[in-house]
Amino acid sequence: MPCRFAVLAGGIGASRFLQGLIRAVPAADITVVGNTGDDFELHGLSVSPDLDTVTYTLAGWADPERGWGIAGDTFRCLETLGKFTGQTWFQLGDRDLATHIYRSSLLRGGFPLSEVTARIVRALGVQSSILPMSDQRVRTWIETPAERLDFQTYFVKHKAQDEIRGIEFVGADNATPAPGVLEVIAAAEAVILAPSNPIISIGPILAVPGVREALAETSAQVAAVTPIVAGRALKGPAARMMEALGHESSALGVARIYRDFLDVLILDEQDRHLTPSIENLGVRTVVTNTIMSDLARKESLARAVLEAVAR
Amino acid sequence: MPCRFAVLAGGIGASRFLQGLIRAVPAADITVVGNTGDDFELHGLSVSPDLDTVTYTLAGWADPERGWGIAGDTFRCLETLGKFTGQTWFQLGDRDLATHIYRSSLLRGGFPLSEVTARIVRALGVQSSILPMSDQRVRTWIETPAERLDFQTYFVKHKAQDEIRGIEFVGADNATPAPGVLEVIAAAEAVILAPSNPIISIGPILAVPGVREALAETSAQVAAVTPIVAGRALKGPAARMMEALGHESSALGVARIYRDFLDVLILDEQDRHLTPSIENLGVRTVVTNTIMSDLARKESLARAVLEAVAR
Repeated sequence: MPCRFAVLAGGIGASRFLQGLIRAVPAADITVVGNTGDDFELHGLSVSPDLDTVTYTLAGWADPERGWGIAGDTFRCLETLGKFTGQTWFQLGDRDLATHIYRSSLLRGGFPLSEVTARIVRALGVQSSILPMSDQRVRTWIETPAERLDFQTYFVKHKAQDEIRGIEFVGADNATPAPGVLEVIAAAEAVILAPSNPIISIGPILAVPGVREALAETSAQVAAVTPIVAGRALKGPAARMMEALGHESSALGVARIYRDFLDVLILDEQDRHLTPSIENLGVRTVVTNTIMSDLARKESLARAVLEAVAR
Repeated sequence: MPCRFAVLAGGIGASRFLQGLIRAVPAADITVVGNTGDDFELHGLSVSPDLDTVTYTLAGWADPERGWGIAGDTFRCLETLGKFTGQTWFQLGDRDLATHIYRSSLLRGGFPLSEVTARIVRALGVQSSILPMSDQRVRTWIETPAERLDFQTYFVKHKAQDEIRGIEFVGADNATPAPGVLEVIAAAEAVILAPSNPIISIGPILAVPGVREALAETSAQVAAVTPIVAGRALKGPAARMMEALGHESSALGVARIYRDFLDVLILDEQDRHLTPSIENLGVRTVVTNTIMSDLARKESLARAVLEAVAR
């Protein structure tokens, strides 16, 4: 599989980064390895939120404001489903539902998720490749003081408000990387960890046996863009999660999580003071503006990453 | 199950009749026994077109112009599904899809179709009961000169244009009536065969072992409204189908198909000349205006049927 750039990706943060990356390199040169720990079943349909966010982004279908779903989508089916099930907390748009209906039908027909994802990607005219981290089921569960929650219940239904006592990637121990995952990590010019949540977006990918080892062993440069800037997550619960699990909520904390395989960390100007501590870990640093506030910023961040990994 | 009126029903013709009937008697006094021979799977979803047409009609959701689907429905999911599957010949609206998603989910969970249908009916606030003819799978197949077609391919995709060599209700021999079907036929004040296609709408119901016998044995009056007027079907391929299978395409032909259990046939003024031949079969006749061109006509037809079955 010819792939110059392998990108390990969660959902929203990764999509913003990819919007910039496809302006800097041909989309066909990119293979995304996507998180499936957030996948779940709703109304009998198999939903893969992170894979879809990336796919819709690369297809030019994404809703840039919301960060999930399809721009301009309507919710008429969901309204009616609510009459039957009372369950409307997870927003499934009418066009978005087509993806879930199609995926569910193929999965029930015995197709692996990697093949299903490839068909969706092709149908939407996406030039990049998108691989799920595994064809086996891996599910992120969140331990809270009161109960153990599946990821979407924690994240969407409970709005990520519960205190976190622990996180488990159920099924990861017995999962294998999807076809192509280890190969692209080994053969890429560079591997880029998108500015996604290190715990619950990149974490499940790293939990699939063989992935972390492949990152350590690849001759490619491995770069990460920290999603934590000035101690805070740009979006979502990453900072609180890192703290809850005993990590420092900073670019340094991110570098420590990735230190066994990371060559270079791209961090924000605001965190320039952290570079000595990070470099002490054996990780190079590149300081730039990592706040992706518009398309130009997204592209310049992508170019900074490409420069950092260029030999 | 308290049921004054049992109505054997296909799709569009039955729905028009039921629109009149619920204006003449309380909806809660009606139990519909619906055809499931048209059911099929599309995009991995279980679709029950006739049950849904009746349900949407009784819920006040039906599209009165088209005769199928939900009034004002949109087709955004289907458009997107078309990108994945290329299959858009069967129109599934966004709100309509919610019914199929919900039904499919429950069926896969092991619920019988009768229970699933009851839940849909309740959720939409329908006061009548709607029973599938059977919880087992019965499928109508059409033999054409070129090939054997499942019903929806023949009817919707091929627009009912193929010549018919034969019709088979696959699975009927081993099916049993759904819970309540034989009971309502036995206990009703009257059983009414709606003006549906005798071959492929009422035919599958009669093909479920025990139904025909129950109609012959019930102490209820059994009435039918002929869907053939002046030798032609008001809608759909009923007349051509009857001829292709060796029946006379007329109210007399309809009476012959039902003669073993029918007490009274309601036929149109235009067919008054057929009454002696029909009465010779031992079937009483009531002549009225059976063309349901507006709501008032639908109600007056319903009242004529109720009068015909009144003791």
